[in-house]
Amino acid sequence: MKSDPFDELLEALRCLPGVGKRSAQRMALQLLERDREGGRRLSVALGEAMSRIQRCQLCRNFTVNDLCRVCESSDREAHTLCVVESPADVLAIESATGFRGRYFVLLGRLSPLDGIGPEQLGLSMLARRLADEPIQEMIIATNTTVEGEATAHYLREMATREGIGVSRLAQGVPLGGELEHTDRSTLAHAFGSRQPMR
Amino acid sequence: MKSDPFDELLEALRCLPGVGKRSAQRMALQLLERDREGGRRLSVALGEAMSRIQRCQLCRNFTVNDLCRVCESSDREAHTLCVVESPADVLAIESATGFRGRYFVLLGRLSPLDGIGPEQLGLSMLARRLADEPIQEMIIATNTTVEGEATAHYLREMATREGIGVSRLAQGVPLGGELEHTDRSTLAHAFGSRQPMR
Repeated sequence: MKSDPFDELLEALRCLPGVGKRSAQRMALQLLERDREGGRRLSVALGEAMSRIQRCQLCRNFTVNDLCRVCESSDREAHTLCVVESPADVLAIESATGFRGRYFVLLGRLSPLDGIGPEQLGLSMLARRLADEPIQEMIIATNTTVEGEATAHYLREMATREGIGVSRLAQGVPLGGELEHTDRSTLAHAFGSRQPMR
Repeated sequence: MKSDPFDELLEALRCLPGVGKRSAQRMALQLLERDREGGRRLSVALGEAMSRIQRCQLCRNFTVNDLCRVCESSDREAHTLCVVESPADVLAIESATGFRGRYFVLLGRLSPLDGIGPEQLGLSMLARRLADEPIQEMIIATNTTVEGEATAHYLREMATREGIGVSRLAQGVPLGGELEHTDRSTLAHAFGSRQPMR
């Protein structure tokens, strides 16, 4: 019965992360019963996005043009470069901070066991930028996982070789967090790295 | 920046139930980074479903033809009719039970305050079926909410007037449920309606 549009819709919805059989059913029924306009709009938006969105040729973030909005903007400072693992991290930093520099998106992290080495992360592109652009500070914003840390160390070597300063996001107890609910390793790190209070 | 395909996709994904800003972002990135084929397939499936799926002219369930699969099948018994609130209930009953009769889908429940009366639930269509078809038993499978119960009482009157037997799904403690986690009213009902053990 795969040719039935309803079954086909249920099946297709399951390619969305976190959507199983039940939520696919709920989504399909909601759209059909109450929001056909929204369903049509989503259909068009998906088609457009899947065919038109590609990689920025400078930072590897998503864009419909050769360069993404950040890379093509003349407002952004050329002397700081923030390196992140994924486009989601760019969105998070853009919405939470006042960062005015540029980005480089690794699209992953070093993970030799999964076959992800410097080439898969586009590090030759990054090396070219470090050599050619007037970058003074590289902000390493990879995740604080084991692989993210390994990647950060590799990136630091690359920058140091070019004489570029390196910084890493501060680690510690989250703002608004309660100590009793902070995990042990974060708490141990924050305690050991305590700062003079001004 | 509404014309940007990425922003437009984020916005459009939010018409799905339970999808907020964060999940929309996660979905869009997942499709773009790892599953463009799935995204294209979903786009086509949505377009097809939204334009081709309509109401069955007999039971009001979703279908691409004039009659749904159940109504057009000659295998289904004509003497039992199961009345449910929504197409999701039909799917649930089809997958969980061996029911071989036919359905009528109310697409709602009596709710005078929301302007939902017998006409909105297609009860004249139902009355015609009760009069014309050789129905011997009407199984009322509306939800066990206050409005579902009111609807059930209304439906019982309709069936009784035609001399048709009426049944309602059994209510009690769920199978595999633990008494201490069963809500008070269900437990009180199940206790009062205890059955001789055979």
